[in-house]
Amino acid sequence: MTTTETGAATAADAALYARVQQFYAWQMGLMDDDDAEAWADTFTEDGEFREPSRMEPLAGRAAIRSSARANVDRRVAAGLRIRHWVGMLQLRPGPDGTLLARSYALAMRTPAGGALEVFASVVCRDVLVPHGDGWLVRRRDLTHDAAR
Amino acid sequence: MTTTETGAATAADAALYARVQQFYAWQMGLMDDDDAEAWADTFTEDGEFREPSRMEPLAGRAAIRSSARANVDRRVAAGLRIRHWVGMLQLRPGPDGTLLARSYALAMRTPAGGALEVFASVVCRDVLVPHGDGWLVRRRDLTHDAAR
Amino acid sequence: MTTTETGAATAADAALYARVQQFYAWQMGLMDDDDAEAWADTFTEDGEFREPSRMEPLAGRAAIRSSARANVDRRVAAGLRIRHWVGMLQLRPGPDGTLLARSYALAMRTPAGGALEVFASVVCRDVLVPHGDGWLVRRRDLTHDAAR
Repeated sequence: MTTTETGAATAADAALYARVQQFYAWQMGLMDDDDAEAWADTFTEDGEFREPSRMEPLAGRAAIRSSARANVDRRVAAGLRIRHWVGMLQLRPGPDGTLLARSYALAMRTPAGGALEVFASVVCRDVLVPHGDGWLVRRRDLTHDAAR
Repeated sequence: MTTTETGAATAADAALYARVQQFYAWQMGLMDDDDAEAWADTFTEDGEFREPSRMEPLAGRAAIRSSARANVDRRVAAGLRIRHWVGMLQLRPGPDGTLLARSYALAMRTPAGGALEVFASVVCRDVLVPHGDGWLVRRRDLTHDAAR
Repeated sequence: MTTTETGAATAADAALYARVQQFYAWQMGLMDDDDAEAWADTFTEDGEFREPSRMEPLAGRAAIRSSARANVDRRVAAGLRIRHWVGMLQLRPGPDGTLLARSYALAMRTPAGGALEVFASVVCRDVLVPHGDGWLVRRRDLTHDAAR
């Protein structure tokens, strides 16, 4: 994003900004609460999930759901509680009524009775499409700070 | 909270959301600035403070104040600066004009001249009651990620 | 700031609050994206940047730019990705149309292929002056939690 695209002159309307903040609090909370299926339902049927550490993007809600369920099962088996924080949100309008959201995300985990570890900083670029009173994620691109 | 309760369809009004964000920035800042008494005054007289690591909840503002003062004195004696971050805020209306706020909190500390330690991730569930132009906390339930 | 100054009674208007949140997401993002020059342009020509670890404040945008460029060059050479999070924002009106912003900032870094380190917690006090549809920083005072 350039200065022109993201500066205060193009700041999103407060109502929109607050709603997207709440969308992320809710969406990430579903995953943190181990509800992989409800989380997957926040993607479109044809949603894509991309991160450089995967050879291929996850294509479609079913693939996203299945991957998320496997992740949740692994960490429950490992006795880990996970939290995702989203912050530093920037919004701009995309084509066809979509919303382009760029945010920072922090991933952290805590074993039962153990110490908190903040283990990853990620840049999250989403294409959000309107759905009812909210949105669905059509495409998510994650860039890990460690991945270069 | 269920999907239905916390999805974008029930997103809090932007004005309310921004005010509660500021309430938490201010409230946590009081504690971080070692003002245990002003912090305790953000609870109702009959306020409760619950966290699983305590055998009994703190019942009433006086008990909350006294516990907070002891905490502040301990960490000042230990030469620690503390910070509380609140994020991932979700709001929904409660009974009798109350507001139910769920947020994530991170607690961190830094010794003088030493290294930052982000030491706890907590889920904070508050019952907020209107008070003047703001709120008081009637009940706070903390769940530490390590406590299972 | 006192209780009276920062309590909910003086909470900033939601539109203003959302715009300043976005200002910081954008401003910090410029630095994190290694664009020291665009970042420096968010300060006034006579802007000041103060932190206790410096003997002298940086006075003027040119000095701020030159210091920022040196910082960026150093960390690029060291192979570090950096992220700044701003949160816990409190606003109040200052003299002559300025805006006084107090926030917490977290600084973190990740080496290529390495582990995330959240290395500093800072309190950031800014004097923002209106500029076009946004703001410029006239003065920034940083207080590191480790510095006492």
